[in-house]
Amino acid sequence: MNKKLKIVTIGGGSSYTPEIIEGFIQRYHELPIGEIWLVDVEAGREKLEIVGNLAKRMVEAAGIDCQVHLTLDRRAALKDADFVTTQLRVGQLDARIKDERIPLSHGLIGQETNGAGGLAKALRTIPVILDICRDMEELCPDAWLVNFTNPSGIVTEAVIKHSRIKCVGLCNLSQSMQRMVAEILGVDKSRFLLQLVGLNHFLYGTHVYMDGKDVMPEVLKNLKYDSAHKPKNIPDIPWLQEQIQHLGVIPCPYHQYYYTTSDVLENQLHDYKEHGTRGEVVKAVEHELFELYKNPDLHEKPKQLEQRGGAYYSEAACELISAIYNDKNLLMTVNVRNNGAIRSLPDNVAIETTCVIGRYGAIPLNNDALPSTVSGLVSVMKSWEEMAVEAAVTGSYGAALQALTLNPLVPSGKVAKQVLDELLEAHREYLPQFFRA
Amino acid sequence: MNKKLKIVTIGGGSSYTPEIIEGFIQRYHELPIGEIWLVDVEAGREKLEIVGNLAKRMVEAAGIDCQVHLTLDRRAALKDADFVTTQLRVGQLDARIKDERIPLSHGLIGQETNGAGGLAKALRTIPVILDICRDMEELCPDAWLVNFTNPSGIVTEAVIKHSRIKCVGLCNLSQSMQRMVAEILGVDKSRFLLQLVGLNHFLYGTHVYMDGKDVMPEVLKNLKYDSAHKPKNIPDIPWLQEQIQHLGVIPCPYHQYYYTTSDVLENQLHDYKEHGTRGEVVKAVEHELFELYKNPDLHEKPKQLEQRGGAYYSEAACELISAIYNDKNLLMTVNVRNNGAIRSLPDNVAIETTCVIGRYGAIPLNNDALPSTVSGLVSVMKSWEEMAVEAAVTGSYGAALQALTLNPLVPSGKVAKQVLDELLEAHREYLPQFFRA
Amino acid sequence: MNKKLKIVTIGGGSSYTPEIIEGFIQRYHELPIGEIWLVDVEAGREKLEIVGNLAKRMVEAAGIDCQVHLTLDRRAALKDADFVTTQLRVGQLDARIKDERIPLSHGLIGQETNGAGGLAKALRTIPVILDICRDMEELCPDAWLVNFTNPSGIVTEAVIKHSRIKCVGLCNLSQSMQRMVAEILGVDKSRFLLQLVGLNHFLYGTHVYMDGKDVMPEVLKNLKYDSAHKPKNIPDIPWLQEQIQHLGVIPCPYHQYYYTTSDVLENQLHDYKEHGTRGEVVKAVEHELFELYKNPDLHEKPKQLEQRGGAYYSEAACELISAIYNDKNLLMTVNVRNNGAIRSLPDNVAIETTCVIGRYGAIPLNNDALPSTVSGLVSVMKSWEEMAVEAAVTGSYGAALQALTLNPLVPSGKVAKQVLDELLEAHREYLPQFFRA
Amino acid sequence: MNKKLKIVTIGGGSSYTPEIIEGFIQRYHELPIGEIWLVDVEAGREKLEIVGNLAKRMVEAAGIDCQVHLTLDRRAALKDADFVTTQLRVGQLDARIKDERIPLSHGLIGQETNGAGGLAKALRTIPVILDICRDMEELCPDAWLVNFTNPSGIVTEAVIKHSRIKCVGLCNLSQSMQRMVAEILGVDKSRFLLQLVGLNHFLYGTHVYMDGKDVMPEVLKNLKYDSAHKPKNIPDIPWLQEQIQHLGVIPCPYHQYYYTTSDVLENQLHDYKEHGTRGEVVKAVEHELFELYKNPDLHEKPKQLEQRGGAYYSEAACELISAIYNDKNLLMTVNVRNNGAIRSLPDNVAIETTCVIGRYGAIPLNNDALPSTVSGLVSVMKSWEEMAVEAAVTGSYGAALQALTLNPLVPSGKVAKQVLDELLEAHREYLPQFFRA
Repeated sequence: MNKKLKIVTIGGGSSYTPEIIEGFIQRYHELPIGEIWLVDVEAGREKLEIVGNLAKRMVEAAGIDCQVHLTLDRRAALKDADFVTTQLRVGQLDARIKDERIPLSHGLIGQETNGAGGLAKALRTIPVILDICRDMEELCPDAWLVNFTNPSGIVTEAVIKHSRIKCVGLCNLSQSMQRMVAEILGVDKSRFLLQLVGLNHFLYGTHVYMDGKDVMPEVLKNLKYDSAHKPKNIPDIPWLQEQIQHLGVIPCPYHQYYYTTSDVLENQLHDYKEHGTRGEVVKAVEHELFELYKNPDLHEKPKQLEQRGGAYYSEAACELISAIYNDKNLLMTVNVRNNGAIRSLPDNVAIETTCVIGRYGAIPLNNDALPSTVSGLVSVMKSWEEMAVEAAVTGSYGAALQALTLNPLVPSGKVAKQVLDELLEAHREYLPQFFRA
Repeated sequence: MNKKLKIVTIGGGSSYTPEIIEGFIQRYHELPIGEIWLVDVEAGREKLEIVGNLAKRMVEAAGIDCQVHLTLDRRAALKDADFVTTQLRVGQLDARIKDERIPLSHGLIGQETNGAGGLAKALRTIPVILDICRDMEELCPDAWLVNFTNPSGIVTEAVIKHSRIKCVGLCNLSQSMQRMVAEILGVDKSRFLLQLVGLNHFLYGTHVYMDGKDVMPEVLKNLKYDSAHKPKNIPDIPWLQEQIQHLGVIPCPYHQYYYTTSDVLENQLHDYKEHGTRGEVVKAVEHELFELYKNPDLHEKPKQLEQRGGAYYSEAACELISAIYNDKNLLMTVNVRNNGAIRSLPDNVAIETTCVIGRYGAIPLNNDALPSTVSGLVSVMKSWEEMAVEAAVTGSYGAALQALTLNPLVPSGKVAKQVLDELLEAHREYLPQFFRA
Repeated sequence: MNKKLKIVTIGGGSSYTPEIIEGFIQRYHELPIGEIWLVDVEAGREKLEIVGNLAKRMVEAAGIDCQVHLTLDRRAALKDADFVTTQLRVGQLDARIKDERIPLSHGLIGQETNGAGGLAKALRTIPVILDICRDMEELCPDAWLVNFTNPSGIVTEAVIKHSRIKCVGLCNLSQSMQRMVAEILGVDKSRFLLQLVGLNHFLYGTHVYMDGKDVMPEVLKNLKYDSAHKPKNIPDIPWLQEQIQHLGVIPCPYHQYYYTTSDVLENQLHDYKEHGTRGEVVKAVEHELFELYKNPDLHEKPKQLEQRGGAYYSEAACELISAIYNDKNLLMTVNVRNNGAIRSLPDNVAIETTCVIGRYGAIPLNNDALPSTVSGLVSVMKSWEEMAVEAAVTGSYGAALQALTLNPLVPSGKVAKQVLDELLEAHREYLPQFFRA
Repeated sequence: MNKKLKIVTIGGGSSYTPEIIEGFIQRYHELPIGEIWLVDVEAGREKLEIVGNLAKRMVEAAGIDCQVHLTLDRRAALKDADFVTTQLRVGQLDARIKDERIPLSHGLIGQETNGAGGLAKALRTIPVILDICRDMEELCPDAWLVNFTNPSGIVTEAVIKHSRIKCVGLCNLSQSMQRMVAEILGVDKSRFLLQLVGLNHFLYGTHVYMDGKDVMPEVLKNLKYDSAHKPKNIPDIPWLQEQIQHLGVIPCPYHQYYYTTSDVLENQLHDYKEHGTRGEVVKAVEHELFELYKNPDLHEKPKQLEQRGGAYYSEAACELISAIYNDKNLLMTVNVRNNGAIRSLPDNVAIETTCVIGRYGAIPLNNDALPSTVSGLVSVMKSWEEMAVEAAVTGSYGAALQALTLNPLVPSGKVAKQVLDELLEAHREYLPQFFRA
């Protein structure tokens, strides 16, 4: 790899693009990128134009020797790529709003990566991602696919099961957890290793090694998630301390959906009534961001992007790409093929866990067997994800209904079926696998 | 074993006692019982008197050489027993009514063996059962404990984990499933083997062997639970056919709580409003039964008992005892130590599965790995049961809250905690492990 | 199954045939056999004639309504069969003699089912058995294949992996072990259950249940194999008591090859020098038997057959067939698909273990995890068997050499390679898979 | 850890000491060692004096700020140590000579870490190492034990099972394998990752990642061990190419003992006749080395030490210590607790595998399930090691005999027992656990 790198970002018209561009600029000294291709679809043409021009101005201002290309021709972009990142959203924010609104309208949690909304997003996204993989197998078979399209774990599993492309699924959650542990211990995050294992958005901390000792008991005793340590899209609801203390491991912020389901639902229903869905809020924020991006005098990532939520995502992507390229043996928590890392799950599913990253890719660190307090829950969560992948790939209505039945956020029965039917109908144009002639 | 057998029935004042007495009378030619001891506690003294005298009349009328003893002195009864059956109910029907009423009053499913009610029943029952085991270890260490006190699987697990007494947990559910399959196939149940595996009240049919072939596909296609094939206490609600067809295995009647949760809940809330809880209905039925039992001219099990629900329970107990005594190699579905029979669960938990029964006890038949459609759900159900056993034995509030958090019928969070607090308070007198000074 | 049964015995010209005929005659009241077809190949024509005519005289003398057919046309025999038994020997006794002689000539153990000789026998036999399966799939797809062709475990595994025919592999070893335990306990074998698990000719007793208790410690303490409890073909060599006592389980007679390898070898080399190989001894015995069989006044199995070794084999076959036909739930130790019964081995291999037998076939009883004293040895033995099956099916020289390398009775290296080369050459005519043009 | 480090080397009188001293000197810029304590026993007093003085001269000549202490008082040395390395040899080289000579005299392979010799060495060494651990638990409970006393895997397992001290077991074999792969690929070893898994001296290469691709097939095709890539103590014997090619993984040099047993034995018996045992050769080399060490003008590791065999051992130890101290995330192949890294083995045994090394210790990378060609062999090898640990800790004769019975290099039976008896007798003074009054 001594030529300059070609990087392709699919969903290049995303409001996050300035972040990833900034990440590449900051790492240019160790990551010699020659070309960045931003790809989008017709529906995203205008956004691609706006954010792509900002990207060009950023690169130019940085004075690095790198070309930014904007295109709707995905295959042209993929030809001979070294790394492909995906930040696409099938159906744009309007689809997300439906994913949130339909479950909420039936009194269920409405969230874009969890519950019924997560299923709908998976059903729309997986066929597109697998299409991209088909193109990559032909045009850049040795490139790495760095996925941060949600639901990241389910999407990664689809690639693992149905493509030969090397894929790593990213999430920024592990970084929030590291920051919280650092604060509890009162030390810099370089001083300890937080070992993590589970599924995407369903991740547990199992060990905290500091100076050769496992200080987990100390950390657990002082565990707290306040607004500083949780993603913006998760409501600020107190955990049940007795329940959490009994876990023996550190839950992740998203676990609130599962450990305080009734409270999150109450909060969401209230918010929904008052402010509409989170997707609608985001849509307004995005609109403002794009207004900013249009400014021809803007040559850097605007501060406001950080309030968008989802920060550190692009940071993680750039870090990962650099760790692979520079063979860094970096420890990072990503989504990969299980292969025995969680012994109670099948080999060929996606899990999220601390991996060592280098030119060889991402190899999970050895994990203890999951404690009995969480092992069963991880198994049933993986089951619903497996059903979601099956439904997305085959268009099986039974598999989709099974997925919702297994999902702990969706009460099974008539309600589940009705929500599923409405979601399928609402996204009909993106779900050809369910509506074949 | 050439002496005559001594059988002890704990909870002997139960309205079911005539059924088990009938079972012993019918098997007297192969099961030479010399003594039957009916034991109860002070609170059950009157019922014991009534039903015990009926038992005496039944035995006398049958003309068999067997003594029936009524006693409140458990240790005297247990001395040198061969088989001990348990059909006790800690706190009597009033406790059951609370188990149903408290969850329902918070909008949750209220049922005596599932969900929050099942937890409360386990917390009350396990200490009593383990006390009995302590006595047995001293007074009849080689006797078999035949448990049909609910929640049967959880209670059996407590005995497996915390006693050396040989224990088999019974349930009559497998017989309903056999009858349904027999009807679907249009043959007598002796013509096929329905292989079953799972947990108590959470049991799946995995194979139907007829004439050396597995006819499962044919059975699945015609699967139906109507009122003829489900226990009386389960509401008559349609299954979601697409979901069930996708399972690849036969669910049990109790699975309706898990596969159509919202519909069962709606039905329960409606019934609760109209008729009160199931426990209240049963209480009335019981009252009538005991009025009948008082009749000094009654010398046999009255027909009305069959409408009580729970039929075939005593039948199963007698069948099991005879299979052990006569070394029958009978195939029967019971609750036993897992020991690898379900590979995804720990060795030392209780499972329910088809076993071969003989003088050696109950040995599970080899099972396939559970299909991915149900494996995760079985794991999380076993997790909640494990937490329930831990809570019952240690009095850990955290374990009890964890149990409810994992239970798919209870939404986690404030509601779960509140229901738990109310249940603990309501049953305070039976839960010394939670209210130590 | 209300028609009369058709039974086919392949290798019908074997000297054992009178035993299986006697078994069928004795069970005629419960096993309504209408036709017995004895099949052999051209090389066995004369023997088939002799023993087949004896069979006819036996059936006639018994006065049962059953036809005995003799044929070289296997396909005609298989048409619509209910049970097919295999007792064939590819290459007849001359091949066996080579299997023993070639290893011995290099200073290795020479035995027909273990070590290098066992590999050669597997390589010759498996292609023939799979050919029979192909015919059965076409002509009698629902028939049971009851294999007692050695090496029985390896042959059964080949059928499991490469055919859809239902197959049970038999061995008479478990019966020797039962007799020994009965003698140690001083009770009839109906009084206890000896639970067995392992591989064919590599079987361990793990539990001895008597009157509901596991009396294994008592049995182990008094363990002894003397000439009464071991097959005739195993030398009478003392076990190392300290080593056996440390096992914690009961070894089988064939384990002497593995636990006292040097002593067995010494004994074999001595015998070989004095008397030639075991195969040569057997050949002489067989010659005498066939002389007896020719006697037209003989109408029953001659006593001398019992000295032949291998007694109880046909007994086991008849018992198995009757247990299946009559749905007996008989506990019997046979070779079947593992399917998790030994957890440390793959699902799709053959193991030998106590099964319950009925119309559904043979289902293994649940086993404990193997103790660490024997688990590794069972794993490496299964590995060599897996390599043997692979070599037999594909003709891979590497797999065959791997098999010998893994086999504990064959020192790896040049010697193994030389023995393999000589065996392949010696049996060239029966090994087309290794000598394709 | 901002104070200067205290390092203790037990068996400090070893001829290898100059190598480890050189390693510390070379890393002084990153590894601020303040004190090195060389500890030995009375029998090693003279050697300790000689090599210890050389060590002092080396440190002085290097001009680093570090004290070298020589002592026979182990407890004084261990007080507050940061790292403890062990390179002791219980019974010195004379014991090794017996370990080689006794098996050879019975026609068995005689080697210090494999077969019967390896067992004897384990039995002598483990009690001493566990004594050291007892001291460490009291005097420096947070120190790392870096073991390179052979048999390294078995010794490490004893520590894992019977002590709370953090222990990493070293071997230099993985470096030979890396050099061989580098030569086959024609690239520097920094260009690829050779992933290794197995047991100490029984290690397999499972993946060779170069530039993100697994190039294992290419490496396997060109596999060769010639004198450049194998330890000096392993004879130069050709591998069986067909057998090795069929493995699908890369064996380690020591695998020759297992894959060409008869050839190694022949070679050893020849060498033994001609030159005596390897131990005797080494003894002569050591004598010469100590003569050199006495030279007061020698201030550096003499070249001749590299011919001693066992080179790179100390290199590995220094590298490991620095990786821990500097939190390097170094990938290195060491012996650690299995914990699921090899799924077919128990959690609490020692395995050797590629780990990531940092302040948290050594965490294994995730491994594939072992291929069926080697999985069984690894299991039986681990079984013998488990028995060896049990025998060493408990003094059980049965466990020791079991260990030899399972070991593929020792034919079971009378010979094994005789060799065991002679070894126990010969080492009687070092085996108090076997000779308690």
